[in-house]
Amino acid sequence: MKTQPFNEITIIGPGLIGSSLGLALRDLKIVKSIVGIDKSKKNLSDAVKIGSIDEGRKIIDSRIEKSELIFLCTPVSTIDELVRVVINFSKKNTIISDVGSVKKIFKPSTIKLASKKCHLVPGHPIAGTEHTGAKFASKQLFQNKWCIITPINKNKKPINIISEIWKNIGMKISIMSQEEHDKIMSITSHLPHLIAFTIVGTAFDINVKKKLFNFSAGGFRDFTRIGSSDPKMWTDIFLKNKKHIIKTLNNFSYDLEKIKSHIIKNEYEKIFNLLKRTKEIRKGILNVEKKIKKN
Amino acid sequence: MKTQPFNEITIIGPGLIGSSLGLALRDLKIVKSIVGIDKSKKNLSDAVKIGSIDEGRKIIDSRIEKSELIFLCTPVSTIDELVRVVINFSKKNTIISDVGSVKKIFKPSTIKLASKKCHLVPGHPIAGTEHTGAKFASKQLFQNKWCIITPINKNKKPINIISEIWKNIGMKISIMSQEEHDKIMSITSHLPHLIAFTIVGTAFDINVKKKLFNFSAGGFRDFTRIGSSDPKMWTDIFLKNKKHIIKTLNNFSYDLEKIKSHIIKNEYEKIFNLLKRTKEIRKGILNVEKKIKKN
Repeated sequence: MKTQPFNEITIIGPGLIGSSLGLALRDLKIVKSIVGIDKSKKNLSDAVKIGSIDEGRKIIDSRIEKSELIFLCTPVSTIDELVRVVINFSKKNTIISDVGSVKKIFKPSTIKLASKKCHLVPGHPIAGTEHTGAKFASKQLFQNKWCIITPINKNKKPINIISEIWKNIGMKISIMSQEEHDKIMSITSHLPHLIAFTIVGTAFDINVKKKLFNFSAGGFRDFTRIGSSDPKMWTDIFLKNKKHIIKTLNNFSYDLEKIKSHIIKNEYEKIFNLLKRTKEIRKGILNVEKKIKKN
Repeated sequence: MKTQPFNEITIIGPGLIGSSLGLALRDLKIVKSIVGIDKSKKNLSDAVKIGSIDEGRKIIDSRIEKSELIFLCTPVSTIDELVRVVINFSKKNTIISDVGSVKKIFKPSTIKLASKKCHLVPGHPIAGTEHTGAKFASKQLFQNKWCIITPINKNKKPINIISEIWKNIGMKISIMSQEEHDKIMSITSHLPHLIAFTIVGTAFDINVKKKLFNFSAGGFRDFTRIGSSDPKMWTDIFLKNKKHIIKTLNNFSYDLEKIKSHIIKNEYEKIFNLLKRTKEIRKGILNVEKKIKKN
């Protein structure tokens, strides 16, 4: 399905994700003008330079009324409040969406207000790199990845519009509840990041620092890549998805204690069987990826 | 320095590492004939096919006397015993080396015997992939990576010979004690692998299995790659480097509990400062890598 054309779309926070979205939207040729709003003058000028936005603004004001679609691409801790600000300037058909990595972030009053005044369709394109800022943006960032949409009501039309946009950009769409999204992400993304951030710190508390730089190839290097993502963004995510992260973390700690005890007791078979499982799970993931790329 | 030529080198266990070594040795044109010894007929024929060995044998017997240099590329749990077998057939100038990921694996009696009868120079080229077997071998595997040599005595000549071989293959050499090696590796390699193996298991104990395959891009996928390495090899490593791994694991668990407590108490600044550190450490690693590639 072809996406309907827009006169103006606003991207609040045209950083890595926001500007990649801008570039991808432009590539689809479905919008006449893209406005970027950011507190950072530098990021706005980077975004204009790479062409992800046409115009940069430092504040949200009544000019935003002209935009039929507004994407919030800011840290998750800011989204609820910004949505409330944007709703003030919204018309009946305005669609507000976001790209936050945690989805149960809206106050009940925000959801009520949004349902009455315009359309709110929360979303999460699962894409990113360890870099931040418009200058690292790429229209290819979303290709063959998943976008999860977590609707706040059953109003099909705006949900379809947002889904079609991400689909046309190259993503696979999955629709689920905010609760389910946050649970799954706590496992596949938030816990891996929390661990990666932690282990790098652990390593450097130990008195062989200098040599660690040299000998990081055997696994550690991969962790530092995951663990060098934007600290502000991730502090927000850990706090906003606290409930699921703590639960997942407790399960992980329990499993870690179990394997530790097997090592202490020299239980070869038990360790081997735990390790063997991972190889099989990896195979499953690669098979799913192959299927996505084929389609 | 050019490496001295050899008439015959034996590689016991010509799998991924052993066969990559064979290909690299052949590329250096320093050996007339390479013998591979392996229990697996399939792996021997793969190794002959790709040209990492000239001749395959299923057992270690007196024919090995002809080899001036013998590399053990088998799981760490087997190395001490195999070295003792090889010593039986060694001449005074025979050099025995290995590529094991744990270095404090030799019984005092083995070290004594080796020092008396021939030359034992333990080593660890830090290289590998998540694949196993000769068919995945590559002579490029060692390029620009580190090889750690952990001498058992001060006899310079054989240490220099082994160092020069790895250097000519393309590696940077570091010489240190077995104890220091095992401590550093417990942090940069063994703990990351233990965590990766564990978290993949944790994830799949939870009741959203199917969806995990789809949404693994945000960090989890990297863990499954690290965690899909050879389970037999890694069970061996975890048990052989038990002392350092348990200590490192305890430090990590302590740090994980700390960040968990910050999350529970909503301590934004404390979490942010922990996360920020990782980005700086990553920079350090990338800088060191740049330097290595330049040299």
